[in-house]
Amino acid sequence: MATSFDLDLDGDTLHEECGVFGILGHPDASALTALGLHALQHRGQEAAGIVSFDGRQFHSERQLGLVGDHFTNPMTLARVPGNMAMGHVRYSTTGETILRNVQPLFAELEVGGIAIAHNGNLTNGLTLRRRLIAQGAICQSTSDTEVVLHLIARSQRASSSDRFVDALGAIEGAYAMVAMTRTKLIGARDPNGIRPLVLGELDGKPIFASETCALDIIGAKFIRDVENGEVVVCEIQADGTITVESYKPFPPRPERMCLFEYVYFARPDSMVAGRSVYAARKAMGYNLAREAPVEADVVVPVPDGGTPAAIGYAQASGIPFELGIIRNHYVGRTFIEPTQSIRAFGVKLKHSANRAEIEGKRVVLVDDSIVRGTTSVKIVQMIRDAGAREVHIRVASPMIFHSDYYGIDTPDPENLLANQHPDLASMCRFIGADSLQFLSIDGLYEAVGGEKRNPKAPQFTDHYFTGDYPTSLTDLNGRAKNEPKKISLLKEAG
Amino acid sequence: MATSFDLDLDGDTLHEECGVFGILGHPDASALTALGLHALQHRGQEAAGIVSFDGRQFHSERQLGLVGDHFTNPMTLARVPGNMAMGHVRYSTTGETILRNVQPLFAELEVGGIAIAHNGNLTNGLTLRRRLIAQGAICQSTSDTEVVLHLIARSQRASSSDRFVDALGAIEGAYAMVAMTRTKLIGARDPNGIRPLVLGELDGKPIFASETCALDIIGAKFIRDVENGEVVVCEIQADGTITVESYKPFPPRPERMCLFEYVYFARPDSMVAGRSVYAARKAMGYNLAREAPVEADVVVPVPDGGTPAAIGYAQASGIPFELGIIRNHYVGRTFIEPTQSIRAFGVKLKHSANRAEIEGKRVVLVDDSIVRGTTSVKIVQMIRDAGAREVHIRVASPMIFHSDYYGIDTPDPENLLANQHPDLASMCRFIGADSLQFLSIDGLYEAVGGEKRNPKAPQFTDHYFTGDYPTSLTDLNGRAKNEPKKISLLKEAG
Amino acid sequence: MATSFDLDLDGDTLHEECGVFGILGHPDASALTALGLHALQHRGQEAAGIVSFDGRQFHSERQLGLVGDHFTNPMTLARVPGNMAMGHVRYSTTGETILRNVQPLFAELEVGGIAIAHNGNLTNGLTLRRRLIAQGAICQSTSDTEVVLHLIARSQRASSSDRFVDALGAIEGAYAMVAMTRTKLIGARDPNGIRPLVLGELDGKPIFASETCALDIIGAKFIRDVENGEVVVCEIQADGTITVESYKPFPPRPERMCLFEYVYFARPDSMVAGRSVYAARKAMGYNLAREAPVEADVVVPVPDGGTPAAIGYAQASGIPFELGIIRNHYVGRTFIEPTQSIRAFGVKLKHSANRAEIEGKRVVLVDDSIVRGTTSVKIVQMIRDAGAREVHIRVASPMIFHSDYYGIDTPDPENLLANQHPDLASMCRFIGADSLQFLSIDGLYEAVGGEKRNPKAPQFTDHYFTGDYPTSLTDLNGRAKNEPKKISLLKEAG
Amino acid sequence: MATSFDLDLDGDTLHEECGVFGILGHPDASALTALGLHALQHRGQEAAGIVSFDGRQFHSERQLGLVGDHFTNPMTLARVPGNMAMGHVRYSTTGETILRNVQPLFAELEVGGIAIAHNGNLTNGLTLRRRLIAQGAICQSTSDTEVVLHLIARSQRASSSDRFVDALGAIEGAYAMVAMTRTKLIGARDPNGIRPLVLGELDGKPIFASETCALDIIGAKFIRDVENGEVVVCEIQADGTITVESYKPFPPRPERMCLFEYVYFARPDSMVAGRSVYAARKAMGYNLAREAPVEADVVVPVPDGGTPAAIGYAQASGIPFELGIIRNHYVGRTFIEPTQSIRAFGVKLKHSANRAEIEGKRVVLVDDSIVRGTTSVKIVQMIRDAGAREVHIRVASPMIFHSDYYGIDTPDPENLLANQHPDLASMCRFIGADSLQFLSIDGLYEAVGGEKRNPKAPQFTDHYFTGDYPTSLTDLNGRAKNEPKKISLLKEAG
Repeated sequence: MATSFDLDLDGDTLHEECGVFGILGHPDASALTALGLHALQHRGQEAAGIVSFDGRQFHSERQLGLVGDHFTNPMTLARVPGNMAMGHVRYSTTGETILRNVQPLFAELEVGGIAIAHNGNLTNGLTLRRRLIAQGAICQSTSDTEVVLHLIARSQRASSSDRFVDALGAIEGAYAMVAMTRTKLIGARDPNGIRPLVLGELDGKPIFASETCALDIIGAKFIRDVENGEVVVCEIQADGTITVESYKPFPPRPERMCLFEYVYFARPDSMVAGRSVYAARKAMGYNLAREAPVEADVVVPVPDGGTPAAIGYAQASGIPFELGIIRNHYVGRTFIEPTQSIRAFGVKLKHSANRAEIEGKRVVLVDDSIVRGTTSVKIVQMIRDAGAREVHIRVASPMIFHSDYYGIDTPDPENLLANQHPDLASMCRFIGADSLQFLSIDGLYEAVGGEKRNPKAPQFTDHYFTGDYPTSLTDLNGRAKNEPKKISLLKEAG
Repeated sequence: MATSFDLDLDGDTLHEECGVFGILGHPDASALTALGLHALQHRGQEAAGIVSFDGRQFHSERQLGLVGDHFTNPMTLARVPGNMAMGHVRYSTTGETILRNVQPLFAELEVGGIAIAHNGNLTNGLTLRRRLIAQGAICQSTSDTEVVLHLIARSQRASSSDRFVDALGAIEGAYAMVAMTRTKLIGARDPNGIRPLVLGELDGKPIFASETCALDIIGAKFIRDVENGEVVVCEIQADGTITVESYKPFPPRPERMCLFEYVYFARPDSMVAGRSVYAARKAMGYNLAREAPVEADVVVPVPDGGTPAAIGYAQASGIPFELGIIRNHYVGRTFIEPTQSIRAFGVKLKHSANRAEIEGKRVVLVDDSIVRGTTSVKIVQMIRDAGAREVHIRVASPMIFHSDYYGIDTPDPENLLANQHPDLASMCRFIGADSLQFLSIDGLYEAVGGEKRNPKAPQFTDHYFTGDYPTSLTDLNGRAKNEPKKISLLKEAG
Repeated sequence: MATSFDLDLDGDTLHEECGVFGILGHPDASALTALGLHALQHRGQEAAGIVSFDGRQFHSERQLGLVGDHFTNPMTLARVPGNMAMGHVRYSTTGETILRNVQPLFAELEVGGIAIAHNGNLTNGLTLRRRLIAQGAICQSTSDTEVVLHLIARSQRASSSDRFVDALGAIEGAYAMVAMTRTKLIGARDPNGIRPLVLGELDGKPIFASETCALDIIGAKFIRDVENGEVVVCEIQADGTITVESYKPFPPRPERMCLFEYVYFARPDSMVAGRSVYAARKAMGYNLAREAPVEADVVVPVPDGGTPAAIGYAQASGIPFELGIIRNHYVGRTFIEPTQSIRAFGVKLKHSANRAEIEGKRVVLVDDSIVRGTTSVKIVQMIRDAGAREVHIRVASPMIFHSDYYGIDTPDPENLLANQHPDLASMCRFIGADSLQFLSIDGLYEAVGGEKRNPKAPQFTDHYFTGDYPTSLTDLNGRAKNEPKKISLLKEAG
Repeated sequence: MATSFDLDLDGDTLHEECGVFGILGHPDASALTALGLHALQHRGQEAAGIVSFDGRQFHSERQLGLVGDHFTNPMTLARVPGNMAMGHVRYSTTGETILRNVQPLFAELEVGGIAIAHNGNLTNGLTLRRRLIAQGAICQSTSDTEVVLHLIARSQRASSSDRFVDALGAIEGAYAMVAMTRTKLIGARDPNGIRPLVLGELDGKPIFASETCALDIIGAKFIRDVENGEVVVCEIQADGTITVESYKPFPPRPERMCLFEYVYFARPDSMVAGRSVYAARKAMGYNLAREAPVEADVVVPVPDGGTPAAIGYAQASGIPFELGIIRNHYVGRTFIEPTQSIRAFGVKLKHSANRAEIEGKRVVLVDDSIVRGTTSVKIVQMIRDAGAREVHIRVASPMIFHSDYYGIDTPDPENLLANQHPDLASMCRFIGADSLQFLSIDGLYEAVGGEKRNPKAPQFTDHYFTGDYPTSLTDLNGRAKNEPKKISLLKEAG
């Protein structure tokens, strides 16, 4: 339980917080929501929840673990009946993973119940929470999202959807949010559109989802992205028809989608802002090959994130693409934690070198990103142990220097590889590679958007690379140096 | 799952809601709380919770099931560290048994955290809840106790203990409540003192507990009953000493302890309001023998509740006391649910007749109370099947005509045996006994308090027998006929 | 997990090994077996199993835990279909409790399958096991019963029931055994009839059960005890009729039923060898009062075993019977294991003194038996702590000096109270009582059988009191001093 | 539970039975065995077991589920102490997956204990089992391996290793077996060497493992393949040294390794019989491109099995390799089972089309093999739904016509695609592809072994393609038409 030995190649990556899904007016609403969440599972594996409304009552089912662990059982789905449902998968950034932090969250209001689910992170969540508690609010979870729920409950507006817009007006940061009242399903994106949210439809019934892959799994049609700063309100009318209306209640700001959605988070088969994620990743590899060529015998992806970029690199360079690292798919629920003596053997639990393709070769290892670099050290060693003659690392994104505050779980800046070394040569020595190159910021912009970064008005948000944050950071600036991130006094076990 | 066949002799009884315990200033606070709750387990078996404060942070551990299922593990107790702790066992009356209904409940306040645990029931809980929601409060549970928490959070008083008193001033009904802040442990009883609460001490550290048996298990000393309408505030001072202060912040009302604590709920080895419960029950049986004598060969208790009264009956009548019904202690977690064909065999899962002591005998069956009478029918049949020549039922409490609203789970009045029959003879025929007699209300008062009922100022509350409710019934009177008891829109599965 | 603190009054008792049940020709065979085993649960709580035959195939369901934990589920019972079934509850004496030791055991034979279930213990089991292994048998469990199965498998007789008799001919010790083949249900008792087994019937279908209480629970009729050395073979004939035949294939020996069945093991509502167990226990208390009278105020049973004897003692002595010790029924699955500091408080988890009936009184504590005496020390202390003026212990059976080898789990002889003290006075001082008396062997015989012990031909087996073993002890005598009791080389975890 | 909806692309594949591992003389024997089994997890996911010997006693730990579910816990490993250990992972072919079928199996012998683990299947297992039962053996499991254990137990040879050889002499079929006695670790392969087994070493301590990837994970050195018909006996001598001796006790037969190890079963990073599995698969794709070229825009592997062949096909053909199908790694423990209405949406739970790479393209889908073809139908439909202009299927192995009897779980022959259609065109129409081609048997032989099939003495066993079985099929030929495969009369639930 305490210390766990981990030579997981996935260990040194960034983690996305959440995925959201909602559908209005469909008889299989909760089953479709479960499928949609399953397709979004890569966005959060710690917990999943579904809330439905059956015309009379809201129903909630929230579980730690994978969607496929719980929501595959028809009896479980029968506990969330009705023709409107919404759901959430989470990887926790704020709030330990305890059941009452699992979304969607729900509140009874005087004007009727409302459920909300949130992908993103508020930059003034703690500030708002302090104010609410001073006013007598009781916070049951440590989740940012509960703050939004309190704002809704305290709004004096007449309708629950107006209250929802009221609450959005008070928050800062990144959010792709889905809300559900007794007749409405609402999707909203923050003014910069940092986190993705799409609108789709199945049999004429509207759907919101974090990514298009959640539409594909149920055969739904993609309509369009919800725009930055847009609130889309779908409502079942008295006659059963469904209306869809768009609002832009907040001052307009430039769209700045998070680049890491393309680099790492989104599923390769998703379209994000009209661009294939797989194609963007291949283009990153392609650009990388042109920016940082190397004489080599074989291009090997670091699975699974680096594979599309490696294919691009191989196509651009003409060097053959080979599976030089094999992934073990049967990992079990926990990881093996061997004794010290075994640790020294260099145990590889999730990945192993495919020696026949490595031995005596000059290897180009293509990875999607490097965070701390600790995993890179191990992987280079594994490749060298398998007999590689040379190991060259090519990273399909720029160096990371800054923390994210919008829903990506980043290490403290001082732990980032780029901040621990004076120059690239020092990093390369640390990792043990023969050469190391990162994709340029322009190379990344071009791969994703087709053109270079516009320094005056960047087309995306790239703050982890550049420090250029798209919103103010209220909590951060208002916080004393040593103040803890969370203010909850209660630690709930289990 | 759905229908469960139940020849449980315990099935047709009343259920008590809760037990509470708290201790201040002891290094083994949570372990002692676990032991105290274990001793109070008869007051609630569905869930148990402990909250502690370690000088820096509150900790909470709440579990469905018995105290002995979870809080026996040193690792579990290690999750609730600190030298102040309080706990709760519950049998749910309001609020389905879901984890977030399990007490103690906790809230972060601007002035610091507070945890509360409640035994009893509010008669204006729904009324208050509606008002709070209209003001923007978010109710996460369906528990009455959460209403108290919201009242505390919204109070404008400076200290958390003042806020607690503020909240108590707004509620009606029965309560024995324990609250804990960063420095204080507070015990309070409602103005009538309907539910019991005692003050004890161990090594000079104050303890609150629902019954004295929770003091006995840890070798603590009984100090006195918390009085009706009293708030006792124990506080750790800066120098480590503990002060204990008594307040009576509410208009005085006559004490009226619930008689059913003596008849059925409290453990026989507890002292309630200075009177041995076991002695009271024996006296009930003694008085019953004098009020309702019968020629018979053997006095048989209906286990386990009827045993002390049967001993009293036997001693008063001179008829030998025998264990004519044997209880199976190994019942397992669920009950056997046989097929229809087996049901007809008259299966006895928890009890069986001790034929050798029954056959050919005239049997006096002594029970503590009769609610619906359904169990009595079965038990008389079982005794007759074992060959009894005559079966006479003697009940050690009066007939029940009215619902309780103070924390006892009573069936709807129309389902009570006493309301379904015009007279005693009809009840007796229904049950299948040769004779049936109930203890008189005066006989009960005398057994418990040593004197007859004072009709002008009853010494106890006896509303289930008499309809004389000690408080106003705000929710009941304000409620439209068909309105549901609870207003929650959300049904949480699991 | 490791050390468990245990002030359980039940801790210092003897443990019975098993209970058996079987029924032939009834459509609800497995459900009735589950109910019968539930009634026999006091004979073994560690595991339960049922084997059925559906006319085509045998089915088996074996589980650790209580009958009521598993066999209450209709889906579980559906896995043991057919109109013949047999079952077993076990408390393990030989063989750790692992699933493959759980009975009934089953073997495919060339002549068809056979299942067997055993209550008792073989005195030549290890000797036979060694011989079988030398012949190439593979033992999968560490259970004595598997030896019987191997003997059946290796018998050269034509029918499986003949093979069963063959196997019985080779074993020594105590057994009440039930066997089932494709058409037969067989019950057998060892030549001395040490362990009980009765024959009953329901709707004309024969039943075997360890005690009559297993007949009562399903409304079945008691026919007679299976006799010592008798093999009763019930068979479904081709025309559907059931024949019942009796065999006595072994040299006749005197019947010597185990006295501890009356003293402690059997349920009080069972008839064993035609004698009510409850009546026998009351008679033990009655005789004890005459043999060992004492001036006192109150007779208090040590629950639950001592209760009938205490009633007898009270009736004979005229001293009032009172529940001076209260038992906590809600113990949970594990026991509380407090810290050292708490242990010193004298925690009472399962029992507590009923102070109001003890304080200032001269108390006669009546217990069924004393094994090590360690529990008696604690209980006397608990009674003294509750304020008793005098504590007199009266034990309703003689002193125990010897080990049992017939299915009762006895401590090593040097750990028995009677072997650790030179005389009664020393024992009394150790226990801390004011006086201590045991029932005489003649007093016990008279209570159970109506007449004194016949030293030339004892009517019962009483070896734990007298050292007079009814069979030879082959394993014991053939074993080198330090040889382990079991010879299995394999330790199966979990 | 009953019917499970499954659009799993992995659903229509063959399943391998088992993987084995053993190590002698290493202080971390059981931890290393756990790691080795983890690396072999692809050979069996239903259960895993480890047996160790600590110099005094054998220890066993067997669990259903993945190695990583149980054997990652140091406390679990502590239950299998000692410096010699062996283990097994299984996918059950014969014998339902119940715990007592989980290997390694163990028997106490007169000459000491022995544990065995088996990968393969006997072709005379039922015949031997019948004979053993007739001789009085009791079979506790339905596993073939238990038959071997009985043969060992009944052998009259003096040493347990000689008895093991004795037993091997009686069996027919395929086996790679590891056995362990108090001083020896033994590895053996059947005379044809159908299943793989390698000898390795770590710090001079010998290891047996099904594949080299189990050596790589612990940093052990590959020594050589155990040869067909070879028994390798490693023994700890009295002085602590380890001797390794080779025996060939059986009449020599030609080596015929199973081709499906290369086609599908073995891990791509393993070396089997000196040949890289990954390289062999790439060569299959390469040969397939030459045998069955097609005009197309993109080569898409059916993940994960088809990937190496697809890379080979792309390299040979010059058509770009792209990830046109994306695999969802987060599947959970069970599969989603949607309602009929949802099923019609064409749900894809484990895989989805990468539309951006498919739409408007001519796609070559490369798969490793086709068994029933049912999955191919679905995948072609999925690719067409994603907008492919043409879909061409290329299969990197020949058509399958025959059942396997050597440890591969094959459907009944009448359910194989190749047996359900008169010709390739009919299969192609059934699958819905624009063209369909299989690799020739010579193309496969050349890819694996470098030369064409020698029809007189085939270098491999290829019976599923050709019907040319390398051993006699005793059970099959001796079995009456409708006789069940297993003769067990007992069905053990749970």
